Amino acid sequence: MNVALAIQLKGPVLPADLETPAAVVDLAVVRSNIEAMQRVASTAGVALRPHVKTHKSVAIGRLQLEAGATGITAGTIGEAEVFAAAGFDDIFLAYPVWAGGRRGERLRELHERVRFRVGLDGPEAADALAAAMHGSPRRLQVVLEVDCGAGRSGVPPERAGDLARHAARAGLDPIGAYAYPGHGDRSPESRRRASDDEVAALAVALEAMRAGGFEPVVASAGSTPTAALSGRPPVTELRPGEYVFNDLGKLRLGACGADDLALWVPTTVVSDAVPGQVIVDAGTKTLGREGNETIGYGRVAGPPHGVLRRLNEYHGYLAIDEGSLRPAVGDVLAIAPNHVCPVVNLFDDLIVHEGGRIVGRWPVDARGHLA
Amino acid sequence: MNVALAIQLKGPVLPADLETPAAVVDLAVVRSNIEAMQRVASTAGVALRPHVKTHKSVAIGRLQLEAGATGITAGTIGEAEVFAAAGFDDIFLAYPVWAGGRRGERLRELHERVRFRVGLDGPEAADALAAAMHGSPRRLQVVLEVDCGAGRSGVPPERAGDLARHAARAGLDPIGAYAYPGHGDRSPESRRRASDDEVAALAVALEAMRAGGFEPVVASAGSTPTAALSGRPPVTELRPGEYVFNDLGKLRLGACGADDLALWVPTTVVSDAVPGQVIVDAGTKTLGREGNETIGYGRVAGPPHGVLRRLNEYHGYLAIDEGSLRPAVGDVLAIAPNHVCPVVNLFDDLIVHEGGRIVGRWPVDARGHLA
Repeated sequence: MNVALAIQLKGPVLPADLETPAAVVDLAVVRSNIEAMQRVASTAGVALRPHVKTHKSVAIGRLQLEAGATGITAGTIGEAEVFAAAGFDDIFLAYPVWAGGRRGERLRELHERVRFRVGLDGPEAADALAAAMHGSPRRLQVVLEVDCGAGRSGVPPERAGDLARHAARAGLDPIGAYAYPGHGDRSPESRRRASDDEVAALAVALEAMRAGGFEPVVASAGSTPTAALSGRPPVTELRPGEYVFNDLGKLRLGACGADDLALWVPTTVVSDAVPGQVIVDAGTKTLGREGNETIGYGRVAGPPHGVLRRLNEYHGYLAIDEGSLRPAVGDVLAIAPNHVCPVVNLFDDLIVHEGGRIVGRWPVDARGHLA
Repeated sequence: MNVALAIQLKGPVLPADLETPAAVVDLAVVRSNIEAMQRVASTAGVALRPHVKTHKSVAIGRLQLEAGATGITAGTIGEAEVFAAAGFDDIFLAYPVWAGGRRGERLRELHERVRFRVGLDGPEAADALAAAMHGSPRRLQVVLEVDCGAGRSGVPPERAGDLARHAARAGLDPIGAYAYPGHGDRSPESRRRASDDEVAALAVALEAMRAGGFEPVVASAGSTPTAALSGRPPVTELRPGEYVFNDLGKLRLGACGADDLALWVPTTVVSDAVPGQVIVDAGTKTLGREGNETIGYGRVAGPPHGVLRRLNEYHGYLAIDEGSLRPAVGDVLAIAPNHVCPVVNLFDDLIVHEGGRIVGRWPVDARGHLA
C-alpha cells in the first residue's frame, strides 16, 4: 500500500501570482524541521552535521548551524568550496573522493582553510590524497567509509583497521568511520533494519580501528530515513540532509508527516486539449525523473485529480481519474516532489515565504558545483 | 535488440586532466551535426528552426544561424528571453503558453522586441494571450498546436479552423499549425509512422484553417528522430533540437550514428570497495535519471565493462560483467547519455574542444530559466 496515494495532501499556503514552475519553501516548516532534527540529535547526545546536498543554500545552512549543528556535510568538492567561501569552517566531505590533478590542489586548499575531513574507502584513494597533501603542516583527517548493507561504497567494517593503517602510513589521520544506510529507503520497516545494520557496522569498524592501534573519535551515520533511530552508541554524529524539506519518499517511509513537507513546486495547467489528462508546466527539467508511472513523478496537493504519470522536459502529464475534478487551463497546482534534492538542484533560487508572504529569494548557491 | 548495447562505443578524444563530472563537447562533431541537419532542411526546401532547449547556449545557437537556420525555437518564456537578449530576433515559443500575470507582460515585451510567435492549443489560452497583448500595435502571431498522435497537447487537426477563428476574434494572428511527433521515439520503425502522422495532421490542420477563411503560411514539424523524414509538403519548417549533440536515444532509433555523438560526460572511478561493481562520480545530478536498470542510465565508451545500473545523486553504480575489465579507482571513463537535454541543463557550462584541445567553456545560458 502506498502511503502517499492513500492520503490526501492538504494544499499548502502559497504566495499569490507566482510564475511557474518554481521551488517554493515554507520557512516556518523549514525551521520546524531543523529544530526537530536538532532535538533528535541533542536528545541522543550526538552531533548533527547536516548534509547540504539537499538545499545547497548558504542561508539554510546558517539556520542549521544557528539551531545547533556542529558543522556540515558536503557531497562534492565544489559544494565544500561554496560553503567554505561563505564562512562555514567545519566541513566533512562524506564522499570517497579522488584527489588526482587539480582536485588534489582544491582539496588541499580546503584542508588549509577550514576544519576539513574527507571520506576514504580504499588504498589508492589514500595514496592520492596523501600525495596531494604533501608538505602541508597538518595531516588531513580522513573518515573511513564502511559498507553497512547499501552495497554502494565503503570497505567491509572489519577491514577498517587495515585501511586505517594504510592511510596513516601514507600520511593521513584516520579519525573514525562513517556509513550510509541506503537500504533503509525500501519500506518503513527497512529503516529499523538499516539503522541496526549501520550502528553494528560502525561498532565493528571502530573496534577494528582500535585493534589496529587507533583511537577513533568519529562514528558518523546517515541519513534522514534512519536518523531518528541511529543516535545510539557508538554513533557520535548524524548526517541527514533531506529532513530540511522532506518529500513524498520520506512521507511514504514514515520518516516525516504531511505537515513537514516544506518545499512545493507550483505548476500551471497549460493544456487540456487531450481528453483524460491535463498538461502542466513541470517536466523533467523541474522535477527530475524521480518516480514511476504508478506512483507518479510527484503528487498534486488538494482534492484528488489523478497521477502525474509521465514527464517530458517541460510538460507533465496529469492523468485525470474518472469522476475526479479536472483542473482548468490557467489553474495553479502544487506538486510535492518524490525526491526533493534533484528538484532543488534544478532551480537557481528558492522562493521563501511565511504564510504566503514572500520573504526572500534564496540562491541555490552550490547548484552546478558538481566536480 | 538494443542497438546501443550491441555495439561498442568508440572512446571519444577528450581533453586531458578534466575535473569530473563535466559536459564535454566536440566542436567538430557539433559543426558536422549542424551542417547535416541544415542540409536535410535545405534539400527539402524547408526552413530549419532549431529548438534551443537542447543546448541552451547562445554560442551554439549562433552556429546554427550561421549555418542557415531561419530562427530558433524555445520551450519556455525564460529561454526566449535569454536568446532575445543575446540578439536572436526570430523566435517561436513552441509551447501552449499560459499568459496569466507577469508572464503576460513578459510575452508582450518579447512580442514588441523580436519577431515572435507562440504556440496555442485552446480558447482560454487564446483569451489570456490576447488580454496580455491588449493595446499592442501589432497582433501577436500564434501557431496552432495540433496533436498528431503523441497525445500530449494540441487540438485534433480538424479543429484547427475553429481555434483559429477563436484566436482571430480575440485579437491574435493565427499563421499556421505545428505538431510534435513524440510517438516517433519508440523504435526505428516508429519514426516513419510518426512522421507520416505528423505530415498528415498538419495537412488536415491547414485545410481546416483555409476552410475557416485563413491563409496559413507555417506548417512546423518536430523533432530529431523524424526531421529527416518530415521535410515534405505541406511542412514549411523543422524544429529538431537534439541533433546538435545527439545521444544514445537517437542512436538506438537510428536517427544518428555513433560518430555523431558530440557530448560526453567524463567521470572518475571513485570506489571499487564493493565486489562486482565500481562507483563513478556521475549520478542523477549529472545524468538525470534517464534510462533504466537494463539499458543503464548512460553507457561507458570503450571496451565493454558493464551496465550503469543505478544512480544516486553523486554516485553511479557501474556493474561489471563477469570476465570484463574492471576499471581502477582514479580511471576516467566517458559516458554517453541516454538523453542529452536534461544533462546539459545540469551544468553551468560546456567544455568545448577540438581534437582534445579545449577551445572554450561555453555557458549554458538559459539553464534554470524554467518559467
